[in-house]
Amino acid sequence: MSLIIIGTVAFDAIETPFGKTDKIVGGAATYASLAASYFYNKVKIVGVIGDDFGQENIDTFTEHHIDTEGLQIKEGEKSFFWAGKYHNDMNSRDTLATELNVLETFDPIIPDSYQDCEYLMLGNLTPIVQQTVIKRLKKRPKLIVLDTMNFWMDIMMSDLLETIKLVDVLTINDAEARQLSGEYSLVKAAQKILTMGPKYLIIKKGEHGALLFGDGKIFSAPALPLAEVFDPTGAGDSFAGGFIGYMAKVGTVNFNNMKNAIIFGSALASFCVEKFGIEKILNLTEEEVKARVQEFVSLSSFTIEA
Amino acid sequence: MSLIIIGTVAFDAIETPFGKTDKIVGGAATYASLAASYFYNKVKIVGVIGDDFGQENIDTFTEHHIDTEGLQIKEGEKSFFWAGKYHNDMNSRDTLATELNVLETFDPIIPDSYQDCEYLMLGNLTPIVQQTVIKRLKKRPKLIVLDTMNFWMDIMMSDLLETIKLVDVLTINDAEARQLSGEYSLVKAAQKILTMGPKYLIIKKGEHGALLFGDGKIFSAPALPLAEVFDPTGAGDSFAGGFIGYMAKVGTVNFNNMKNAIIFGSALASFCVEKFGIEKILNLTEEEVKARVQEFVSLSSFTIEA
Repeated sequence: MSLIIIGTVAFDAIETPFGKTDKIVGGAATYASLAASYFYNKVKIVGVIGDDFGQENIDTFTEHHIDTEGLQIKEGEKSFFWAGKYHNDMNSRDTLATELNVLETFDPIIPDSYQDCEYLMLGNLTPIVQQTVIKRLKKRPKLIVLDTMNFWMDIMMSDLLETIKLVDVLTINDAEARQLSGEYSLVKAAQKILTMGPKYLIIKKGEHGALLFGDGKIFSAPALPLAEVFDPTGAGDSFAGGFIGYMAKVGTVNFNNMKNAIIFGSALASFCVEKFGIEKILNLTEEEVKARVQEFVSLSSFTIEA
Repeated sequence: MSLIIIGTVAFDAIETPFGKTDKIVGGAATYASLAASYFYNKVKIVGVIGDDFGQENIDTFTEHHIDTEGLQIKEGEKSFFWAGKYHNDMNSRDTLATELNVLETFDPIIPDSYQDCEYLMLGNLTPIVQQTVIKRLKKRPKLIVLDTMNFWMDIMMSDLLETIKLVDVLTINDAEARQLSGEYSLVKAAQKILTMGPKYLIIKKGEHGALLFGDGKIFSAPALPLAEVFDPTGAGDSFAGGFIGYMAKVGTVNFNNMKNAIIFGSALASFCVEKFGIEKILNLTEEEVKARVQEFVSLSSFTIEA
């Protein structure tokens, strides 16, 4: 039994109002697998890097008990690189550089030892690559979660729709839910998207929390109001990783467990943005995670007598 | 003991993607007092109308046990009139007409029978008029709630700051909280605003719910995800009216009661937007309100074992 996470493993250069970094480790699969590792100890990564990535960075995964057999290293090539600059509001950013490098020819390999996959997180990547991973698993996982973005809706909508058909949970933001469905109301958008394949839809609203739709129900999760967002990079991926890591831990797929998984995912995302890159989610203690989740409980609980 | 609500009592002409109205009854005090009347039966209104308002519209208040002794009627003058058109997203609107009419010279009169005021809702009006009401009450109410908007921050900031000093609860939206404090982070904005006078701050985020700050705590209330918002006019006022009406009903000012008051206020706002103008909040049953509040409970509750 294992949880496979596929996505980018990359270098980022980030500029925020609080400072800037040189090349640091980033990528959707990096954030998601680290976040998941706090809940589940059989996390396995699928991705591709160049020989510039460095053994010490691969060791980071190993230290978190993340299996890297599915992480291809392309000799003589460079890792995916993204550079971006966040505006003062931290909600919008400019992409300064996108160098695909090894990603251009990425053909995901699923090692035999990964065929015990029960939980599959398809991090943001081309829909074709995401679909390939599903097809290369001999047994369909119990839960497939797909994260995607507006970019693929703009240029590969039909491939994306084919891929979405195959998954259980789709995670996108509110603007993307509107784009995918053509509906402004998120309730109507969700109704439409839930006819496209997924049984559950998670709409990520950043500082406004998240909505879960499915089983004819809706759950509204709060976001933790933060005095300072230091670097938003990876928040969505940490959320997704925390979500599926928690689901793998509890082992039963239902709406109630997904509600809690969203709270744990939100907790990981709230840690992620407190420092640059993956720094903050490298060394969390179980107590810190529990205490953060309790903040979400206090934040949103109220008692009204029926 | 009573709850005084001051604000506009007016005519509106509204255009939304779903249709348009001729002049219909509107105004902050109208929405707020109707909403409050579902929780408390000693609601008293302070406002001004022209002789065009019509006895049948005044009767609407009376039918909801709302005292209109403080509602001045200016013979030979016209009521305040606002016309607006909502865009497709329902979150932005154009003002097509604003005719102040009787509001231009509005000097609020507090009848002797209103001097038993324990709860005071200062609906959106010039800060000077809001302040005058506080000063004309011989005994300071137990709870003063003030609603205002960016317009007064733009043109009368110093008057507004003077008025804010005198109140217990301030209700504004997120953009206004940022404008008032000069802080982008809502946590920092709240910290700053809570040094300006109010002990509690409610930040209204429309479709994203509301945040309550005070007593060193934060509460995040969800908004009910709606398939259709028919007409957003009056939602904020219905929220404020439901909030203070519930506070008057329970009678004890503390953070926990305010959390519930926000849920009841949100429930009234969610009804308000389902039809044009005040139509929907004219004839709600206790059962409908209870059922709507239960939807908020289901929407946001989760159980995580500590």
